[in-house]
Amino acid sequence: MTKVTVTPVAFVDPPLLNTVGVHQPYALRAIIVIETSGGVRGLGETYADTAHLTRMEAAAEAIIGLDVFALHRLRDAIDARISTLAVTGGDGVAGMITTASTTDRVFSPFEVACLDIQGKTLGRPVSDLLGGRVRDQVPFSAYLFYKWAAHPGAAGTNGLPDGWGEAIDPGGLIRQAHRMIDRYGFTAIKLKGGVFDPDEEIAAIKALHAEFPGVPLRLDPNAAWTVETSLRVAAELDGIVEYLEDPTPGLEGMARVAERATMPLATNMCVVAFDHLEPAVRKRSVSVVLSDHHYWGGLQRSRLLGGICETFGLGLSMHSNSHLGISLAAMVHLASATPNLTYACDTHWPWKTEDVVKPGALRIVDGAVPVPTGPGLGVELDEESLAALHQQYLDCGIRDRDDTGYMQSIDPGFVNSSPRW
Amino acid sequence: MTKVTVTPVAFVDPPLLNTVGVHQPYALRAIIVIETSGGVRGLGETYADTAHLTRMEAAAEAIIGLDVFALHRLRDAIDARISTLAVTGGDGVAGMITTASTTDRVFSPFEVACLDIQGKTLGRPVSDLLGGRVRDQVPFSAYLFYKWAAHPGAAGTNGLPDGWGEAIDPGGLIRQAHRMIDRYGFTAIKLKGGVFDPDEEIAAIKALHAEFPGVPLRLDPNAAWTVETSLRVAAELDGIVEYLEDPTPGLEGMARVAERATMPLATNMCVVAFDHLEPAVRKRSVSVVLSDHHYWGGLQRSRLLGGICETFGLGLSMHSNSHLGISLAAMVHLASATPNLTYACDTHWPWKTEDVVKPGALRIVDGAVPVPTGPGLGVELDEESLAALHQQYLDCGIRDRDDTGYMQSIDPGFVNSSPRW
Ligand SMILES: [Mg+2]
Ligand SMILES: [Mg+2]
Repeated sequence: MTKVTVTPVAFVDPPLLNTVGVHQPYALRAIIVIETSGGVRGLGETYADTAHLTRMEAAAEAIIGLDVFALHRLRDAIDARISTLAVTGGDGVAGMITTASTTDRVFSPFEVACLDIQGKTLGRPVSDLLGGRVRDQVPFSAYLFYKWAAHPGAAGTNGLPDGWGEAIDPGGLIRQAHRMIDRYGFTAIKLKGGVFDPDEEIAAIKALHAEFPGVPLRLDPNAAWTVETSLRVAAELDGIVEYLEDPTPGLEGMARVAERATMPLATNMCVVAFDHLEPAVRKRSVSVVLSDHHYWGGLQRSRLLGGICETFGLGLSMHSNSHLGISLAAMVHLASATPNLTYACDTHWPWKTEDVVKPGALRIVDGAVPVPTGPGLGVELDEESLAALHQQYLDCGIRDRDDTGYMQSIDPGFVNSSPRW
Repeated sequence: MTKVTVTPVAFVDPPLLNTVGVHQPYALRAIIVIETSGGVRGLGETYADTAHLTRMEAAAEAIIGLDVFALHRLRDAIDARISTLAVTGGDGVAGMITTASTTDRVFSPFEVACLDIQGKTLGRPVSDLLGGRVRDQVPFSAYLFYKWAAHPGAAGTNGLPDGWGEAIDPGGLIRQAHRMIDRYGFTAIKLKGGVFDPDEEIAAIKALHAEFPGVPLRLDPNAAWTVETSLRVAAELDGIVEYLEDPTPGLEGMARVAERATMPLATNMCVVAFDHLEPAVRKRSVSVVLSDHHYWGGLQRSRLLGGICETFGLGLSMHSNSHLGISLAAMVHLASATPNLTYACDTHWPWKTEDVVKPGALRIVDGAVPVPTGPGLGVELDEESLAALHQQYLDCGIRDRDDTGYMQSIDPGFVNSSPRW
């Protein structure tokens, strides 16, 4: 590779509520472009917090000259370079995945860009570099959020409603679900919880279950509950949710819930790095792991995670943060080539209105994304959009995702605590 | 792929002793050639027992028309096809790895041939399809055997000495080790044990240790010992062997030895399929797994095994049966792209005098094989040699490896029992 660029961008994001606060008016991402001496260009997408950007910039310098097939050496070069940096933090997800491997998180978008180049060079989709597609469409879930109708307009935001309406009770969530399913055809539903009292969220799930009978449901409070509360919710939702995601913090707490809950427990909080797998297996803390190539070290290491889950009898699903089209393309190629990814994946895709890729390559039809079959990732960078969203990054003033701080700017009494109930 | 051929071959093999008997005068392998519509040809090598050949032939028919990148679909097609067959057995290794996955064993050589084609199409070595080389030479161990000077000449064998001489005591093994190390420069030594009383084998290892101070040593009795005997040997060889390989049968017995032995226990007998990993981890039966792409489902699934070992804190080494150059090339590409393969690999290479690949591509220098850097596996089929070794297969009369039966034809009182001591 002869040139590597890292460009932070910001895109408009609705006021989606979670247990640590509320999404800020803009979500941040960084777009990676790798170019080869042959003029082939590969794309990657990752977080854009300042610490992560510092590491990304250092990594981008360290890998110039390496071969796009030398992925082990690429990771070693990045590992060596970033270990010299005096930066901390920067997981880009509001402090919720802080124990992921920094090296894997930094390596990931470069690996994806290298696979994009490999595929383009071969004239093959990235899925073919991962063992080939086992499905031509990748199912996703309708990802419901409690939300306000609009950002409050404080702190420089525009205060205009986003069109999705308010959802702070079962009725609002059902309206949101209908709108999302009407538009995209999703056949599974996930609710981001941990926002209101567990009894309200139990009622919401039961209302969704009544409104959408037979549709698989999931609830994810992001570790907002104690073990006791988790067990109470689990008992209430017995037979209603296909899995309960991160009810309580930590491998120990999860193991205590798992021992008595009737449904599988899933996680993208207590198992977010390879180091966590052995203790999770020994303690039997979870039965479903949500993969996410952004912090599991790219597509090939996410394949490894998938193989580990299959080998150790763990289910496999897929996690999402707010993301753009390059990430969706990578997620879809990975999922299409992962036989045991049998749950509908998560995506924030319906919540965004802007992108850096040219439209048309990715769409959700009947709740699933048809896997791009062109060379590489199958998405093309829209240079004008990239420039515009980079300008938006420069202008918006947000440099680190801070759902808690933003919430406190609106509700000064808000306290981020886990478990909360 | 438009054409797939499976050709059994036989090659001359010395009378190497092990706990189940003695190597027959000929070792069997099957050579797989896959051709594409574009005229690219890929090579694979596997066992050639009759049951395995039946499955291979059926698999070869089932995969015609599939894409060489569609490896998941290839494995599924093979799995579906061979599950309809009424054959049993056929592990090709004298009954020692009977619990490996049949699908993985049949799939493996086809996967290797597909990767060979992928690499040739790309103009890249197979190692580049596995994440790229992390080492340019792959170290191997000197694989010592107790042996006779020649096959006894019964049962149609020629009775001529093979040039390696007899080795039935420490002196014979030391002569063998010197000859092998002088010729190949090996810097690690493995002894195949389980042949003589454990005290004799302890004495042999101690003699090798005295003769080659500082050289890592391993002893592999193929589960010939009880737990008690294993612990006695382990105590005697404390500080002398880098690992003890399969001292006793089964995950339970190995766990009991592992609990009290001071050196790591390695295995290619009680962990030979992905199904075995979870119980092995839970029981802490072993601390080193010997990979072998021939029964672990090819190179990509062997990478998965490597990743699992890294994730669960297990060491990784590499197992070998009697093999030819296509297998060695595949082993070397895999090992070169497996960062945590930190032990010298095993190979029977020095024991063979015939091959199906053109000479020159593979050599052992200073105990290591330089990784081929040309496209694909980097070895070329020698059609004349293939025809000659196929004729030898037809003529030799051996259709299933049977070390025990061959030993009993020489020593009618021989009984195959495990544990023996
Ligand atoms: Mg989650
Ligand atoms: Mg062994």
